[in-house]
Amino acid sequence: MSVSPYVQLEQEWRRLHAFHGALALLRWDAAVMMPRGSADVRGEQLAALETEHHALLTTPRITRLLDRAVANAQGLEDWQVANLREMRRQRDHAIATPVSLISRLARATARAEVFWAEARRQNSFELFAPHLEEVLHLVRDKAALLGQALGLPPYYALVDEFSPGISTADIDTIFKSLSRRLPGLIREALELQAGHPALSITGKFPLGKQRALVVEVMRAIGFPFDRGRLDESEHPFTEGVPGDIRVTTRFDAGDLFTGLFGAMHESGHAMYDLGLPQAWRDQPVGRDRGMALEESQSLLMEMIICRSRPFVRYVQPLIVKHFGVGGPEWDIENLYAHLTRVQRGLIRVDADELTYPLHIMLRYEIEKQLLSGALAVRDLPDAWNTGMEERLGIRPGNDSEGCLQDVHWAVGSFGYFPSYALGAVIAGQLYESLRNDVPALDEQLARGEFSGLFGWLRTHVHDLGAKVPVQDLLRGATGKPLSASTFIRYVEAKYLEAAPNEAAA
Amino acid sequence: MSVSPYVQLEQEWRRLHAFHGALALLRWDAAVMMPRGSADVRGEQLAALETEHHALLTTPRITRLLDRAVANAQGLEDWQVANLREMRRQRDHAIATPVSLISRLARATARAEVFWAEARRQNSFELFAPHLEEVLHLVRDKAALLGQALGLPPYYALVDEFSPGISTADIDTIFKSLSRRLPGLIREALELQAGHPALSITGKFPLGKQRALVVEVMRAIGFPFDRGRLDESEHPFTEGVPGDIRVTTRFDAGDLFTGLFGAMHESGHAMYDLGLPQAWRDQPVGRDRGMALEESQSLLMEMIICRSRPFVRYVQPLIVKHFGVGGPEWDIENLYAHLTRVQRGLIRVDADELTYPLHIMLRYEIEKQLLSGALAVRDLPDAWNTGMEERLGIRPGNDSEGCLQDVHWAVGSFGYFPSYALGAVIAGQLYESLRNDVPALDEQLARGEFSGLFGWLRTHVHDLGAKVPVQDLLRGATGKPLSASTFIRYVEAKYLEAAPNEAAA
Repeated sequence: MSVSPYVQLEQEWRRLHAFHGALALLRWDAAVMMPRGSADVRGEQLAALETEHHALLTTPRITRLLDRAVANAQGLEDWQVANLREMRRQRDHAIATPVSLISRLARATARAEVFWAEARRQNSFELFAPHLEEVLHLVRDKAALLGQALGLPPYYALVDEFSPGISTADIDTIFKSLSRRLPGLIREALELQAGHPALSITGKFPLGKQRALVVEVMRAIGFPFDRGRLDESEHPFTEGVPGDIRVTTRFDAGDLFTGLFGAMHESGHAMYDLGLPQAWRDQPVGRDRGMALEESQSLLMEMIICRSRPFVRYVQPLIVKHFGVGGPEWDIENLYAHLTRVQRGLIRVDADELTYPLHIMLRYEIEKQLLSGALAVRDLPDAWNTGMEERLGIRPGNDSEGCLQDVHWAVGSFGYFPSYALGAVIAGQLYESLRNDVPALDEQLARGEFSGLFGWLRTHVHDLGAKVPVQDLLRGATGKPLSASTFIRYVEAKYLEAAPNEAAA
Repeated sequence: MSVSPYVQLEQEWRRLHAFHGALALLRWDAAVMMPRGSADVRGEQLAALETEHHALLTTPRITRLLDRAVANAQGLEDWQVANLREMRRQRDHAIATPVSLISRLARATARAEVFWAEARRQNSFELFAPHLEEVLHLVRDKAALLGQALGLPPYYALVDEFSPGISTADIDTIFKSLSRRLPGLIREALELQAGHPALSITGKFPLGKQRALVVEVMRAIGFPFDRGRLDESEHPFTEGVPGDIRVTTRFDAGDLFTGLFGAMHESGHAMYDLGLPQAWRDQPVGRDRGMALEESQSLLMEMIICRSRPFVRYVQPLIVKHFGVGGPEWDIENLYAHLTRVQRGLIRVDADELTYPLHIMLRYEIEKQLLSGALAVRDLPDAWNTGMEERLGIRPGNDSEGCLQDVHWAVGSFGYFPSYALGAVIAGQLYESLRNDVPALDEQLARGEFSGLFGWLRTHVHDLGAKVPVQDLLRGATGKPLSASTFIRYVEAKYLEAAPNEAAA
């Protein structure tokens, strides 16, 4: 009996999935375990596996099988048809980019990342500029090729790689809504806040105890330590595949919440990845539904759940238990005020829920201009500083806290930034429906019970994998298409709350 | 200008080397870092990469390039000719084994290893027997195919994979010499030892301090922690590639020397791998010269250097410093007596220098018979117990301390065991020449100076990579072909030493 083209494709993707997992482990190890001097060796390994992965994905055999499977799709189940669509999507993206461009980009970004780190340390944009030029040049080629193949403008072809199913119009509409409301909202929130200043929280928090606290909370959430790990790295991230998922965080001895909330953000990603349908786990349809949705899962945890009164009620006694702290600054209301403090700052990763989208919109405008050539690399610092002043009313004192703060452009990730703001917006939208559908949510969270939260996310988000487009998924989960209005309602309610109100918690 | 076939081959092997390194990292991680529940996921990743590595090595393109490079070898340098020879060797081995057999073997051994561990825990050979049958069946196929391709008897085709250049006749001659002298020598040593019993060494040695001691000694040896790591695992091993080499050991809170000597054994491997010629590092000629030579490097460290009076002089003050111990049992002479104690035991990995080769010879005889079918799997326990009684005069009380003690057969490593005994013999032979060429060796070691030792090994062993056959390498380093006589002279001098003699140290 002959094996159908579709089944042969599933077998091919099983192999690609194994490569994908091996690559994930090589990257995790590089950031967490690898000796400092071994970067060159690892670079060669990553390049070899990436090239091979690309070659496997673009063989004529795959194209032939895809054509035959599409022509014989009548007997397939829904999820298999979706799988076929995702397979073609992966192949289309891969085949649009020649392998020589991939390896040139890999080498250029590896170099640029090193010079970016050095430039940031030395606060010298000049050191980074020529490498950014080189990366930009190659990304431009890639965007043009991808755009041609996908019938999209170059920049949106890049966005499509990260967050398929979200259009130019979607992003622009959402960003317009946000920029209409957020600046005023920030002013109002800052005024309100000035009337009720929070007591400052300081102290020394031993890393071993911080880790124990984080592990306890991750266990409560349901993170499976028998199929996952928690480690430390310079920047928190999540790597791996469902079945072996690895989360990192960064601890700060002087700030308890850096490590905890870093881990919570990443646990949001991890719980999504772990919740993806087990039966499809080595197939494209079993992957996450793009980076905007990924970021919605992490930001829902870090920004919405963890900065809510019920969560603060749950975690405050744990903090007292682990660190033996006391005093009025550790009271639940003060802790909540501390964790929801709004501040116009220069650094994206430290930003609060209200100012964060403005950081993203600046990057969005700038990276589009860099890609089109409307903005020259040498003019980037000026454009950045002016944009910050316009949007947030503050001007970076130097490029390290300005246009050198993020690694994304150095590593060629143009088109990724929108995912963060879209993720925040999606998180707000999901949260409203979650609260409606799970009326006991607050009481559960205050008890450290996360089954209501993740049960709802499983059903409405995780279980779908990449089966339906993200807009359909959102409509199914929330009854509405993607829009900024729910997010805006959510932040208005949270940050314009008239006065601390213990009883409402 | 066209690239010559030879240069194209170098490029191909650069890629294969990257795959080899990625596979090494996946294995290291599985033993050291991977969550327990992720074995199935890792199994798929390893199988996919191994299959791909095999496919890359056996493409018609490689065969064509090899033929053309051999036909145009006149302009090549010596090391390139040797590289070409090693490339062909790898290709010949790979092409003899169909990929279907490789993947069946991968699956069967993965299963067998699990059942072996369980059988050992439960002390139930029956649990393991059917899985060993299955592995043996597949290994037999592989040995027959390899033997046919290489023109060797099946068992020796397997040995040739691990230790190329060492023939049947070599092994049999050496094992005959060892079995003629060792049993008598063991008796004599035990008698002598009975006249000077060592004070026993007991205590609790905190693992953190043990690790600090091991790191201090590894630094003294020259292990580069910026391009390598030390971790813990159930069984010590060395993995990785030069440039990112990873050593593990196993600590025992009640025995200081388990962790230290485990790490020293593995550091011997690591220093060999790190000493291989940098210029050839991603080519077959830049690899180690087989497992017998690998084991010679680890056993030279663990058994000869670390169990010598000069090393004990060096390490004793470090032990005092790290653990604050004192008393007559920690005197240098008693420590030396403790570390060179001879004992007829059941467990190979705990055996001393004199009894160790007897453990190996038993396995050598048995695995040949299993492979040929002269011994049935069901009769293995009996054959083992009888063999132990004949060779060492003791009989295992159960199979867990008998034929179930080693993992090798479960994972299909038939033909590996001889490497251990050959390694010990080679180590003895190298040591004699090393002492002649570096007269200050003992004083250096007593000061914790290892440059004389490794300088000599670099020049005579490491720097050659796989350029010359192992017999030529040995003749170059020691002026003699491989033979047991030097090793026997060395153990006679060490274990028949008339009486403790401080002055000679």
